[in-house]
Amino acid sequence: MTASDPHRRCLTIVLAAGEGTRMRSDLPKVLHKAAGRTLVAHVLAAAAEAGSDALAVVVGPGREDVAQEAVRAAPEARVFVQEERRGTAHAVLTAREAITEGFDDVLVVYGDTPLVRPETLRRLRAPLAHAASVVVLGFEADDPTGYGRLISDGPNLVAIREERDATEEERAIKLSNAGLIAISGACALELLERIGDDNAKREFYLTDIVEVAVRRGLAVAAEAASEAEVRGVNTRAQLAEVEAAFQDRLRAAAMDGGATLIAPETVFFSHDTKLGRDVIVEPNVVFATGVTVADGAVIHAFSHLDGAEVGASVSVGPFARLRPGTRLAAGARVGNFVEVKNAEVGEGAKLNHLTYVGDASVGARANLGAGTITCNYDGVAKHRTTIGADAFIGTNSSLVAPVTIGDGAYVGTGSVVTDDVPADALAIARSRQVTKPGRAAKLRQAFKVRRDA
Amino acid sequence: MTASDPHRRCLTIVLAAGEGTRMRSDLPKVLHKAAGRTLVAHVLAAAAEAGSDALAVVVGPGREDVAQEAVRAAPEARVFVQEERRGTAHAVLTAREAITEGFDDVLVVYGDTPLVRPETLRRLRAPLAHAASVVVLGFEADDPTGYGRLISDGPNLVAIREERDATEEERAIKLSNAGLIAISGACALELLERIGDDNAKREFYLTDIVEVAVRRGLAVAAEAASEAEVRGVNTRAQLAEVEAAFQDRLRAAAMDGGATLIAPETVFFSHDTKLGRDVIVEPNVVFATGVTVADGAVIHAFSHLDGAEVGASVSVGPFARLRPGTRLAAGARVGNFVEVKNAEVGEGAKLNHLTYVGDASVGARANLGAGTITCNYDGVAKHRTTIGADAFIGTNSSLVAPVTIGDGAYVGTGSVVTDDVPADALAIARSRQVTKPGRAAKLRQAFKVRRDA
Amino acid sequence: MTASDPHRRCLTIVLAAGEGTRMRSDLPKVLHKAAGRTLVAHVLAAAAEAGSDALAVVVGPGREDVAQEAVRAAPEARVFVQEERRGTAHAVLTAREAITEGFDDVLVVYGDTPLVRPETLRRLRAPLAHAASVVVLGFEADDPTGYGRLISDGPNLVAIREERDATEEERAIKLSNAGLIAISGACALELLERIGDDNAKREFYLTDIVEVAVRRGLAVAAEAASEAEVRGVNTRAQLAEVEAAFQDRLRAAAMDGGATLIAPETVFFSHDTKLGRDVIVEPNVVFATGVTVADGAVIHAFSHLDGAEVGASVSVGPFARLRPGTRLAAGARVGNFVEVKNAEVGEGAKLNHLTYVGDASVGARANLGAGTITCNYDGVAKHRTTIGADAFIGTNSSLVAPVTIGDGAYVGTGSVVTDDVPADALAIARSRQVTKPGRAAKLRQAFKVRRDA
Repeated sequence: MTASDPHRRCLTIVLAAGEGTRMRSDLPKVLHKAAGRTLVAHVLAAAAEAGSDALAVVVGPGREDVAQEAVRAAPEARVFVQEERRGTAHAVLTAREAITEGFDDVLVVYGDTPLVRPETLRRLRAPLAHAASVVVLGFEADDPTGYGRLISDGPNLVAIREERDATEEERAIKLSNAGLIAISGACALELLERIGDDNAKREFYLTDIVEVAVRRGLAVAAEAASEAEVRGVNTRAQLAEVEAAFQDRLRAAAMDGGATLIAPETVFFSHDTKLGRDVIVEPNVVFATGVTVADGAVIHAFSHLDGAEVGASVSVGPFARLRPGTRLAAGARVGNFVEVKNAEVGEGAKLNHLTYVGDASVGARANLGAGTITCNYDGVAKHRTTIGADAFIGTNSSLVAPVTIGDGAYVGTGSVVTDDVPADALAIARSRQVTKPGRAAKLRQAFKVRRDA
Repeated sequence: MTASDPHRRCLTIVLAAGEGTRMRSDLPKVLHKAAGRTLVAHVLAAAAEAGSDALAVVVGPGREDVAQEAVRAAPEARVFVQEERRGTAHAVLTAREAITEGFDDVLVVYGDTPLVRPETLRRLRAPLAHAASVVVLGFEADDPTGYGRLISDGPNLVAIREERDATEEERAIKLSNAGLIAISGACALELLERIGDDNAKREFYLTDIVEVAVRRGLAVAAEAASEAEVRGVNTRAQLAEVEAAFQDRLRAAAMDGGATLIAPETVFFSHDTKLGRDVIVEPNVVFATGVTVADGAVIHAFSHLDGAEVGASVSVGPFARLRPGTRLAAGARVGNFVEVKNAEVGEGAKLNHLTYVGDASVGARANLGAGTITCNYDGVAKHRTTIGADAFIGTNSSLVAPVTIGDGAYVGTGSVVTDDVPADALAIARSRQVTKPGRAAKLRQAFKVRRDA
Repeated sequence: MTASDPHRRCLTIVLAAGEGTRMRSDLPKVLHKAAGRTLVAHVLAAAAEAGSDALAVVVGPGREDVAQEAVRAAPEARVFVQEERRGTAHAVLTAREAITEGFDDVLVVYGDTPLVRPETLRRLRAPLAHAASVVVLGFEADDPTGYGRLISDGPNLVAIREERDATEEERAIKLSNAGLIAISGACALELLERIGDDNAKREFYLTDIVEVAVRRGLAVAAEAASEAEVRGVNTRAQLAEVEAAFQDRLRAAAMDGGATLIAPETVFFSHDTKLGRDVIVEPNVVFATGVTVADGAVIHAFSHLDGAEVGASVSVGPFARLRPGTRLAAGARVGNFVEVKNAEVGEGAKLNHLTYVGDASVGARANLGAGTITCNYDGVAKHRTTIGADAFIGTNSSLVAPVTIGDGAYVGTGSVVTDDVPADALAIARSRQVTKPGRAAKLRQAFKVRRDA
């Protein structure tokens, strides 16, 4: 059986109350990011994609920030606060109100285990549609030392044995407890409430649900995932490993989709990056969130894209930075040391060198010379610059917004344009050149005197 | 025997008719690039270097682009079109006209196997100078599952056994068929024509030449290469692996030659990059094609070089971009956020910051201030800028080409230079500064009113 | 026993006379750098940190450069010149004058083995405080082929057996000779002088001290280090491996300290980089020497920092370059294509785009528009620019140093400022815009005529 029953209604509870002290951070662990998304948002997205009908997020006391991020990521999520830290079963019972609402399946996942795949969650729920009352997710550990082992008797899981309690034979078992559990909604509350705190730390452990269910004669099953998929984040080094795992997935997907990554290990994606067919990405490119790149575009080395739409056959970089709100139409070119922000750039327009275009629209085939700058900020507010189709902006020009340059207009080199320029007009704002023969040598002499003074 | 006989004339046939549908690309597979060169060009270069006297390239129907690239890469190559896809032996026979011209050796290689080394091709031909009529290239597969196995009897290859037909014992053989084959010219046509299409797909398979030759009582030999060297490209992921293999070769060669690569895994070379002794390359540098770097130069981090000659002890970057036609004389400095294109830069000249120099020559020891831009394009055509030795160009200056700045001349900050400046003259083109006490506060107030309007 | 006796006085002799011909470099081997520091300086730092009371450096004849670097890195070091190359024991005896000064311990290390840790050196000396007269550092070699094997009898080392002289059983030993040796000061000179040159090359080998000591009935011990730690540098490829090992250490330490490295493998540190808590470093960042980054700062992708102090919650990059003498106060922002050198930037000040600030101070909350350039160099000398708090510099402005812009002052777009601007004043230096209707079309026509002429 490989899929959950789509008719069964599912509540997913995300445990996100961990402190994460080993992160040495002021930020709670689940708000750290991988592939441009918080860990808890990854887990919520996987839960939603796996077909959850309701989401509950358990946060620690005073963790408004986690609550807000959870609701931002999944507006339908309900937040429950675990006021005291009394163990994972206690955390789950914080969401008692949701548990009692009659869901068929109750799925418990962790906010710091962001690599879990939706299909794994579906597999975890699947046995509930049949005989099982509880299903535990395990993984084949390369080195299971320290993990609880899943002890099975034929198809049934009979116990999760902690390392210290395991026999030699049991220690040889590699299938280890990943912590994620699916419970039949019909008995979830009853089983959870029977878990005791008769242990050294006086905590209520969710893993004890296996023993409780077995004692009650209920069937317990195990499903397996890869070790990589259930990797948790407790340190910055583990965060980096999780990031690397996401990147590997995203790079493989991009190449499968028909993009060339010359050096995949040097390209960094966000979880939502979309690349078309025959896109070429050179080495050393960073995609922040919200980027789409259409077919045939080339993203040259050392480019940084964030919240940008890149049209077909566009050329970006090297050394280009596209910021949120950038939309480049087909065939546009954004070259080196160019920043574009909140701007539409028309078909075939060229922004080739040392340029800043912000809060602007640039018409088709317009050519912006090196050093062109839209002055969108006056120290108080931002204003828009509009550049018409086929306009030509001379190098080192400043366009003081709000200002409009008409279609086919020409701005002379080095001009500061403060007034609108009509279509096909020439605007120029510069001083005549004065040339003084022999003066350079005298100047150098004067500078030397100044230096030596 | 490790080398082919230099007196034997050799025809190399490159099979380049594969569609490459798994690439999900509009571009035929062999036109994808690695290390800055198309796959088919790599193979043609290896064949030429291995001592081929004639080259034949077999392309698919309508593949003018492949034909053109083959002839661009190897002008002496003859192109044959395989109109129908009837298997590899059929493809080889497309070049029948060449095969009948009396070559001593006929070598068959693949356009999508670009890592094969010239010395391997020489070894593959070598047995033809002795007893062998056919020589097959094999490789020791880490996991041979799915490959045809090379079945030998003493020094003789007796069969290539497909996985499905292999006995348990034969399956244990790791020496697998790489596909590349050398055939004695004396019997090549006869052997090729005896290959039949009595198989499921009704295709003519080149590997069947072994059976044909053995049946005729001819000697067949095998030579071995590393698995990495005969790796083919069928997907973008495999293309990335081949790229990585080329980079590893190029990085090792650069270090062997006496260059320091601080982080070799972050430096990307083209197949033709040339680095001198005691060159230092910092992390994150990309060399596109046609770059040479002389002794003692330092290429700082985040630099991108393409078609540039970098002189001795030059300093490039960080964040520099050198484009085709750039020639930097000894001791020149090109600093951050600087682009140079089609320009000669004299000894010790400095282009240190935020500069664009295109279609220009810069004299020895000239100093270009930050923000200097050569305005080489007027919207219609490109023009040249000439800057003399020891000239000093003030910051944020625009030099409107065609224009000449003489030796030792001085251009004032912020000038737009439209007329030639004689040697040792001062050119200035800017407005006097006007300072209005107290006006900044009023301006801010006015901007606030505008914003709130 | 894991630590050396702090009361024992120690002389450390650093052998740094190797030519390093396999480096193919004009620079002697020990002057090549890893993690921003010469190899010999790494070794001297480890020796000092391990508690050496005196340092002796043995250099080759005519190697003033090595001597100078040794003294620069460790001013207390004494330099001895090995005039003839007669082997490692001969090299050690070059420092005879120091050896005779009555140290308790004499430690011999190598200038080309920079990864050795201070704690390893302490462990190496420790047995001298007890029975041992000589202690040899070994390492468990993955593949010991070619290394001398450490042959022990219980706690005692009895011989270092060269590969060629080893029995089959001895060849199976993996503990190999790393070359580093600690000798009791009481017998160091005597033992060293008894080493002979009765071998093929007629050289005096330091490893022979084991045989000499054993023959004299003195106790010899072995300590073990990891193979990675005693890796030597003989080629550029090995230099790159050592660099990678340093980077791995530095990255792990940064993450342990509470910094997020999104892609640690793309971040390059210097040996002295200091990162605060909750610092985020995006992919592709290079830290040259002398950088400190305070808590909560974000270093965006493609940034290059050298000799800079970055304050709390500062944002740097992407594509920023900070050069020596940069000090950014809390909350400052340095954006894309911006270079800062020898400048103090006040709290919350913004240098967001395409800017060069050198030899300057920028007041709190000042805003520098895109394209702002401080003209600090007049061709002869450098001068300072002072920008007041809350000042606003319009885009594409040039500030010609020496010049002062007062608090709250406003510089109009495109101005060249040559005179001081008082607080709250407006300075403007530009021409009025002239707009000529219809002239762009005529201009294009004229340019076409020029092109076709």
